[in-house]
Parts: sequence; C-alpha cells; structure tokens
Amino acid sequence: MAYLPSHELVDGVLSGDARSIARMLTRAENGADEARAALDRLYARAGRAHVVGVTGVPGSGKSTLVAKLAAAIRRSGRTVAIVAVDPSSPYSGGAILGDRIRMADLAGDPGVWVRSMATRGALGGLARGTLESVDVLDAAGYDIVIIETVGVGQDEVDVARAAHTTVVVSAPGLGDDIQAIKAGILEIADVHVVSKCDRPEANRTIADLKSMLAMGLALDGPGERRGVAVVATSAATGEGVDELLVEIDAHRDRLVASGALAQRRSAIAERRLLKAAEDILRDRFERRRGAGVAALLARLDARSISPHAAALDLLRGLDWSAPE
Amino acid sequence: MAYLPSHELVDGVLSGDARSIARMLTRAENGADEARAALDRLYARAGRAHVVGVTGVPGSGKSTLVAKLAAAIRRSGRTVAIVAVDPSSPYSGGAILGDRIRMADLAGDPGVWVRSMATRGALGGLARGTLESVDVLDAAGYDIVIIETVGVGQDEVDVARAAHTTVVVSAPGLGDDIQAIKAGILEIADVHVVSKCDRPEANRTIADLKSMLAMGLALDGPGERRGVAVVATSAATGEGVDELLVEIDAHRDRLVASGALAQRRSAIAERRLLKAAEDILRDRFERRRGAGVAALLARLDARSISPHAAALDLLRGLDWSAPE
Repeated sequence: MAYLPSHELVDGVLSGDARSIARMLTRAENGADEARAALDRLYARAGRAHVVGVTGVPGSGKSTLVAKLAAAIRRSGRTVAIVAVDPSSPYSGGAILGDRIRMADLAGDPGVWVRSMATRGALGGLARGTLESVDVLDAAGYDIVIIETVGVGQDEVDVARAAHTTVVVSAPGLGDDIQAIKAGILEIADVHVVSKCDRPEANRTIADLKSMLAMGLALDGPGERRGVAVVATSAATGEGVDELLVEIDAHRDRLVASGALAQRRSAIAERRLLKAAEDILRDRFERRRGAGVAALLARLDARSISPHAAALDLLRGLDWSAPE
Repeated sequence: MAYLPSHELVDGVLSGDARSIARMLTRAENGADEARAALDRLYARAGRAHVVGVTGVPGSGKSTLVAKLAAAIRRSGRTVAIVAVDPSSPYSGGAILGDRIRMADLAGDPGVWVRSMATRGALGGLARGTLESVDVLDAAGYDIVIIETVGVGQDEVDVARAAHTTVVVSAPGLGDDIQAIKAGILEIADVHVVSKCDRPEANRTIADLKSMLAMGLALDGPGERRGVAVVATSAATGEGVDELLVEIDAHRDRLVASGALAQRRSAIAERRLLKAAEDILRDRFERRRGAGVAALLARLDARSISPHAAALDLLRGLDWSAPE
C-alpha cells in the first residue's frame, strides 16, 4: 500500500479503522516529526477512555492477568486496548494479537487491540510514544486502555501518573527484598492484585499486603487510602478476574463521584507537559550535538566547567523561538 | 555545631574530613541552591576514582555482595565509598556505617564510607544528587566509588551510564520473566555475577548467562563483548568475591589500555550535561507553577492544546538568561 501522510490517517483512526490505527501507532512510537500534527489532533479527540495501569515485578504473572482481564472487559460489553511496555512480554513485536491473547479466545475480536512497545535500552521503562499511543487508542474509541509495564523503579511511578486507575500485581513468595519495595508501591496502587492465589503462600502475601495497607491508613489518616482493595487472582482457574474488573470500575466510580477524577486528569496533564518539554529538550540537544555541544563536552571532560553550569550555557544558547 | 556555608566545607571534603563529607553529601542530596558553587568546585577536583555500578533485581543478594566487595577492596589496600540507591537496602537512612558493614568487620574503618540515598517516590530510581554525591566522595579521595542500585528499568541504564564498570548481579532460580529481562542486561554489564552460587540451581544460571553472552558475541561480532566475565559468588562462604574484584580491575585496565576509558568518560559527561539540563528545566517549571503554567494546564485539560505545543509555549516563555 502507498504511504499515507499522517494527517490522512486521522479520520481512519477516529472511525476505528484497524489499518489506520496500526500505522498511527507505529508513527507515535517512532516519534516521527511528520506525525506530530496528527497526534496533536488525536490528543484533542481523546479523553473518553478509562486508562488503567497494570504494573508489577517480573514473575508476578501480570501479562497473563492482563489477557484474562481483557476477556472480562469484553464479557462486560466494552472494548479494550492494551499497550504493553514490557521486555519480558510474550507479545511479538508489533503484532496485533499475541499468542496469549489467542489462547484466551480473543483472536480476531475487533473489540481488543494489543500493542507491544519497544522499550528504551531493552530494559523496560515507559517507552517514548507510550502516552501518544494511549491517545491514539483512546481517540479510536476503545473504552478501556490498559498500559502494562514491568519493573520496580521510576517507570512504575511514571505509569501510575499516566493512568486513572493503577493496579499493582504481586505474586506470593517472591522474597523479602520485593516485600520491602512493596512499601513504596502502596503509594501508587489503587487496586492490589495477588496473582497465583492457588499457591499455598498466597494467603500470607494477602495478609501482608492488607496489614501494610492498614499501617498506611494509620499513617495517612483515614479516608486517604480508603477503598484500596486486595484482589486474589489465579490465571490457572480464572478466579478473581471478574472481581478485579469490578474493583477497577468501582475505583473509577469513586473518582467520578468525589471529583477526584478531575484532579487526576489535571495531574496527568501537568506530568505530560513536563515530559513533553523534556522530550523537546532532548531532541534539540541531539540536533546540536555537532555544534556547540562538543565544545561544552570537552570542557566538562576537562572538568573546567560543571554539568550544571554547562547545562545553563546550553539552555541559554538554544533558540527556543525557532521552529523545530 | 554551627551551620557552615557549603563553600567552607570544600577544603574539609578535599582533605577527607568525615564531618565535612557527611554534611556535603546531605546538601548534595537535598539539592540546595546554596551548595551549588561548592559542588561545582568539587566536580572540578573529582575524576580520579574508579566508579563501579552494581545493579540487579530485588532478591539477587547484591547488597550483601557489595559489603563483601568493599572488604575485598580494603584488603587490596584501597579505600572505597558506597552510594546505595536502593529502597530495600538495609543501610539505615543517612547512617555512615550500616549493620551489614559492621557485620563485615569494617566498622570504624575510615577507608570505607557508606551513604544511603533516599529514593524518588520511595520506588527506586537514580535519586537526585546521586551523581553529585559520587563527585563528593571522589574528590574526598576514595579510590573506588560503588553505586548500588536496584531494579529493572531505566534506573539501571542510568547507573550504567554513570559508572566506568557496571556489575550486574543475578541470583539462581528467580524465574523465567527475569531471565528474559537478562537479555537486555547483557547490553550494560561489564561483569556478570551469579550470587548465591552455593545453591543447586546456580550452575544452570551460570550456563544460561554464558550462552546468552555467546549469542551476543555472535550478534555483535567478535571483540564487541570480549572479556565480559561471569563470576560466581557466595555471600555465605565469601567465595568469588576476590575474583570479582580482579575482574573489575581487569575491566578498568582494559578500558585504559584500549583508550575506551576516555570514550566512556566523555559519554558520562554528555549524559550528565543532559541530566543537568533536565533538572534545571524541572526546577524552573516548579517555580512557575503558579503563574503561566496554570493557564497552560487548563488548556491541556480541555484538550484545546496538545502536550507538545504546550511544552513549546512553556520553553519559549522561560527567561533562560535570568539568574536562577
């Protein structure tokens, strides 16, 4: 097929045309300048989908859970798109439907979209273009967009800041170090899942999480963490997956009823503004690498200037009013 | 004791005075503007230490390994500082010597410094001030500075970009998902460690790593990955720790002999320049939050402007030539 400029794909995306969506997602991921105006138009038309972040350490079984959750969403009569930012994800690169989804009998269902994102440095992280891809799928009309991400670290915080509802998946028996990190995860989880609940150690993990949540309640004051559910699921039996969807919907309802959804949208907008500014900065930096940057780097190397002073020099030297 | 302005601490740091170092590290971590000029002076005097990044997934036993490695470095007649960026680290916050180090009979040894960094959002990540803390300890004269970090994700790439030698720690039997991620870790490791080598599954993990390295060799062409050692260690018996130090030193020697150390230093300088620019951007953004930013956020929220267009507006509106 002939190459279509991005602006000619916008109407296709908005009408849910699969080929237009697939092409637009590729361009979002590649960060092509040519696609910028089209992505901006799609951003303007997005905002209807409920965005769910699903995160958890490697081995927590979250990829399998996401496939089951997608099936549950379909059974509830809604459509769902999955953006998987996970180097360990079994989705094949760029494939619309991965093996696992096929396994879950969702193959060929136009109400499900699965997109696997290449990750930065092959090591996880919220890949560039992830948020734009969510915009594309949101504008294409998917009711729920799931961002699946791996790891412990800043990436999880990033995904939580991009989602309306954040689900944190824990597996039983993953060791004390991981449990220690869980203390940090309490901050970002709207719903906790303990996967592999058919395992004997699951009850212990559920109890640990609940007691940590109770301690968090005591620290934050009542109300702050009210309603953070702990759901036990099993990919083997399918147990708990419908309950997870109920809790996700309940969280959304609470956000709407309390007015907190507007706050959350505003926080997401703020985060995206800063992230876009950082992306622009990085682009300009790359483009100037040949010119003034080389001289600055030589001075840094010789330690005759500090990184901070060099960065100020750089920022002052960039012509921000020039077109890109 | 009276508060000393940061510039009066510089000479103390350079002469290795513990109290000056401790205070300077706190100010580096807090990102105090007042400390900026002093940190810039210390950057100018740093550059002598060999910086070793040690990273691995939770449960890999890297914290214990780092303590053993520190003892081995001392036995070799050199001094060592550890900057631990790890929410699961057993070091107590801000303590100079943690329990484990005491356990390792290093207590009271002025040739060892341990600093635990608060992490962003309690979820890991290369905390702000980490690189400046390395400068402080480098300028204070420590021969080797170890950055210990947790997790899988962008943070590990960041630490690899800040270190001269990157050590990646794997534990036997941590599951298939983690093994899949290892493929990405091949890119950043200069030395691989398989910890807990007293466990029966360790031989399998060592063999897996070696075969993955061999595949990497095939893909990259010979030479590219030459000399990436796989060292088996046991914290229980102390096995392999001296060998790990030998491999770290050998890596450094190869970097020096091949001229690659200069390239690596240059890449680190470039990364720091960009990171410093991002930090400045974030600061300015925070400070303007009340003013123009609110109006931009409202437009973003209403989707009448895209994040990219709003960010360009923001960057153009900032007066970069003004003092901070």
